[in-house]
Amino acid sequence: MKIDGIWYRSVRVDADDGWSVRMLDQTKLPWHVEWLRLTDEAQVAHAIRSMQTRGAPLIGAAAAYGVALAMRRDPAALEAVCAKLAATRPTAINLRWAIERMLAALRSLPEAARAAAAYAEAAAIAEDDAATCEAIGRHGLPLLQAIAARKPNQPVNVLTHCNAGWLATVDWGTALAPIYMAHDAGLPIHVWVDETRPRNQGAALTAFELGAHGVPHTVIADNAGGHLMQHGEVDIVIVGTDRVTRNGDVANKIGTYLKALAAQDNGVPFWVALPHSTLDMRVADGVTEIPIEERSQSEVTDLTGRTKDGRIETIRVVAEHSPAANPAFDVTPARLVTGLITERGRIAATAEAIAAMYPEKP
Amino acid sequence: MKIDGIWYRSVRVDADDGWSVRMLDQTKLPWHVEWLRLTDEAQVAHAIRSMQTRGAPLIGAAAAYGVALAMRRDPAALEAVCAKLAATRPTAINLRWAIERMLAALRSLPEAARAAAAYAEAAAIAEDDAATCEAIGRHGLPLLQAIAARKPNQPVNVLTHCNAGWLATVDWGTALAPIYMAHDAGLPIHVWVDETRPRNQGAALTAFELGAHGVPHTVIADNAGGHLMQHGEVDIVIVGTDRVTRNGDVANKIGTYLKALAAQDNGVPFWVALPHSTLDMRVADGVTEIPIEERSQSEVTDLTGRTKDGRIETIRVVAEHSPAANPAFDVTPARLVTGLITERGRIAATAEAIAAMYPEKP
Repeated sequence: MKIDGIWYRSVRVDADDGWSVRMLDQTKLPWHVEWLRLTDEAQVAHAIRSMQTRGAPLIGAAAAYGVALAMRRDPAALEAVCAKLAATRPTAINLRWAIERMLAALRSLPEAARAAAAYAEAAAIAEDDAATCEAIGRHGLPLLQAIAARKPNQPVNVLTHCNAGWLATVDWGTALAPIYMAHDAGLPIHVWVDETRPRNQGAALTAFELGAHGVPHTVIADNAGGHLMQHGEVDIVIVGTDRVTRNGDVANKIGTYLKALAAQDNGVPFWVALPHSTLDMRVADGVTEIPIEERSQSEVTDLTGRTKDGRIETIRVVAEHSPAANPAFDVTPARLVTGLITERGRIAATAEAIAAMYPEKP
Repeated sequence: MKIDGIWYRSVRVDADDGWSVRMLDQTKLPWHVEWLRLTDEAQVAHAIRSMQTRGAPLIGAAAAYGVALAMRRDPAALEAVCAKLAATRPTAINLRWAIERMLAALRSLPEAARAAAAYAEAAAIAEDDAATCEAIGRHGLPLLQAIAARKPNQPVNVLTHCNAGWLATVDWGTALAPIYMAHDAGLPIHVWVDETRPRNQGAALTAFELGAHGVPHTVIADNAGGHLMQHGEVDIVIVGTDRVTRNGDVANKIGTYLKALAAQDNGVPFWVALPHSTLDMRVADGVTEIPIEERSQSEVTDLTGRTKDGRIETIRVVAEHSPAANPAFDVTPARLVTGLITERGRIAATAEAIAAMYPEKP
């Protein structure tokens, strides 16, 4: 993850005091690169809920550090803190996964030992995520190389939805990891970036990080992807995910399902990149079983951006008095998914393939 | 078409002088109701190109009045004026239909007689459109009545994309005409309004006109429709169109195709409402033959709306330096269309049904 040529991680312990936690305030992007300094679990919970920090893998690591911060003050509050952090957002399973891992590591320790162990475990979760994402990139890369080989001297056009890049993870990203690796290896990659209403994570975050890394890309309205696929302008779709069921159903940012339908209708491969922590083996049918977060209608009615003269303004774009609804995720049935790109390799989005790849998962 | 209880038409000759033309400036909606006063064909061309006046049926009537305005000054310029107005926008076929009708009515007349005949013909086109839309409403109404009968005491949930209401026509609208009639008849209608990026005609125009008429509605991100259909929240989709081919392929606002795919995947009926002037019997395959307008990338990167304290501001929402693409329409293949609602009745979206319903069309 590079900004102005300097390598960062999306979450890290502050070098100055060795215990507070720094995260990018993603609600300020793309206009301002501001690092939050978080000193207790309430601040971490707020950062997750308000989406200052977001992205399924990243909020897992962020919550782990939230537990660590809490353990400095009140190690007896372990269970309560974990319950509180787990309740910040309902759809991404990585959050629950990270908190369960923290609980497993800390529960049996004497209270005096919990803080140090919590920092160590949170760091291990963050390291795990970075290494996992790098492996996802390596396993996704051959998909892009194969397309490049098929159409020499033409760009490989990848469509992605929302942000599943390094901003959504500790480093590298999930869906974008193969793209960064392909670009760095000299492949002529071009990314169609869905703006991803209502929060515009594509327009604000994916465009920002691809731009910072120098990857050619074009922002489009979420409505445009089907038309581009009909006209052969998309070679492959790669998205991230907030939860994959044991059957291979994929929860991801609202609108992902529509792109999967268009991909199927036009014979475009539709791949989902995920770390092991995104698998939820306890859930089979994604459409009926995964809870879908309903967020504030103001995210639909109002937008924040920058005026020509540099002011940050929030404007309403919906007719006065008209209400809005804001389901934040949808579920793409496994039948529409060409395959999953995991840190262990590429597999079909089927119960059999998932169980075979992750035999240790309960 | 009612605003504050007063009935208007979207285009009309000014009562004050009997020859200038008034149209709503739709780029000022929903915040300001401003009537443009247009006095020559260049102003009309600008209003159509800039989408101050928009909607396939309405720009046909607007262009007809543009010809009439031009005939007052220079009746010898008939062909040149018509060519200029026809070039303002490429996708909606009603524009060409109206101009061809004007040419047919005026070409053989002595120059001195053209101005009066042009006003008469433009008025006839406008009357035709209003009557046509009312008939579309009558033929669409039974679809909503049937749903209401099937689920007593529950709302009939209609999803629509873009604006195909009275703002897009001279009166009534196409897709919204059955909705207004059903609401006026006491049916419990509720409309899911796609915001319709990038120009937000749903959030700004459809929400405005449904609100002005008192029809319950909820604005959603364009991404949300598939999720709502998966969960049984949409009973029927009704959209307008800019061009229907003789095979039944449907060009409409970008993103329509994605909703048609979701409708098919969830067994939701997908209907397209259109006046005869939207049929293009010269074109068979919509995806390959209909020209798709590519509009300015600033429509994607920048949005205009109202701040809390009442200022109208334009903000950029896309990361700096990131380019955008902006195809304005897409084509929904006939295979995804449940049927067409026309002023003559409801038919299948097939070459046979269209030819049988419109035997006089070349």
